[in-house]
Amino acid sequence: MAYSPIIERLIQAFRCLPGVGPKSAQRMAFYLLERNRHGGVNLAEAINIAMEQVNHCQACRMFCEQPLCGYCQDQRRDRSLLCIVESPADVMAVEQTGGYHGLYFVLMGHLSPLDGIGPEQLGIAQLLQRLPDPELKEVILATNATVEGDTTAHYLADLCKDFSVKISRIAYGVPLGGELEFVDGNTLWRSFNDRIAVSHSN
Amino acid sequence: MAYSPIIERLIQAFRCLPGVGPKSAQRMAFYLLERNRHGGVNLAEAINIAMEQVNHCQACRMFCEQPLCGYCQDQRRDRSLLCIVESPADVMAVEQTGGYHGLYFVLMGHLSPLDGIGPEQLGIAQLLQRLPDPELKEVILATNATVEGDTTAHYLADLCKDFSVKISRIAYGVPLGGELEFVDGNTLWRSFNDRIAVSHSN
Repeated sequence: MAYSPIIERLIQAFRCLPGVGPKSAQRMAFYLLERNRHGGVNLAEAINIAMEQVNHCQACRMFCEQPLCGYCQDQRRDRSLLCIVESPADVMAVEQTGGYHGLYFVLMGHLSPLDGIGPEQLGIAQLLQRLPDPELKEVILATNATVEGDTTAHYLADLCKDFSVKISRIAYGVPLGGELEFVDGNTLWRSFNDRIAVSHSN
Repeated sequence: MAYSPIIERLIQAFRCLPGVGPKSAQRMAFYLLERNRHGGVNLAEAINIAMEQVNHCQACRMFCEQPLCGYCQDQRRDRSLLCIVESPADVMAVEQTGGYHGLYFVLMGHLSPLDGIGPEQLGIAQLLQRLPDPELKEVILATNATVEGDTTAHYLADLCKDFSVKISRIAYGVPLGGELEFVDGNTLWRSFNDRIAVSHSN
């Protein structure tokens, strides 16, 4: 015999979340039922509001509930820089560095023809509308350091060539605090190829 | 800058789930927003229904939406056996063995005076109402093999002494497929102490 239908449905519903298998789903369901019904009701409400109201920023495709996201609205941000990332989480990662104050463009994925993800799914038409902006001086490609991210970056670099903007790519290499001994060969070789001239003290 | 308020609220709400930290919560929120809004709406509905309608079985304290759970209602189950477990997940674990067809009593926890969990929180009054049942022949203690589970089992054994029922405890020992070399010392010593007589073939 299984659980009662309502509990069974709750456990199954939790399995739609990434990284949640049967055991975790059961644990979540029982945790809410046993100890945190208030939290459960709050979670359900938060999900409902978000699923209904969250949309994409019309300028950068970031998730937001207004036509323009907070970054695109913020007049203090440097409009000469446009950083292209794969996902909203990447925006947060860049923001946490505290050093970048330009704008963003969020692809919401990377090129992956086999999964049916082409330029259209990545909002390239929207991106093309932003490139002629006379304020824009530099496009910074910050896709992931994966094969797909790399392919996407090459495609974007090609695309940007026709516009009078500088195109750059964030650096690959040995992470800070990393010891050469423990860095994988591909990364190390890349950091050799991308080596940067250091001025001599003559 | 952080996410927009609705997304921020969704991420925070996910953190009420067990084992979900800031990164997982963010991943869940974005996953639903990006790829599975239908699943999100379904999850919210499942949570709402469950939080509102799921209660405890009046006889065994198992979670269920009716006054009596499926096990207690089922007339085919062996009413001479009562298995006492700590949680609803334990009921499922016992059910999955496929060998037990008696009834259950779910404590919804274990004795833990420091956390304010005493006999009242474990529904001992409800349990005492079931013990005089003339149909009941044996109470099987199946609390966890932890210090708290053990303490709870001792307490329950004491409690049952006053009634004309047999009291038993599930066996501790080397798990099937386990090699003695890799079993911890406490478990192995317990399995020596609880050794069972094997009849000689004379």
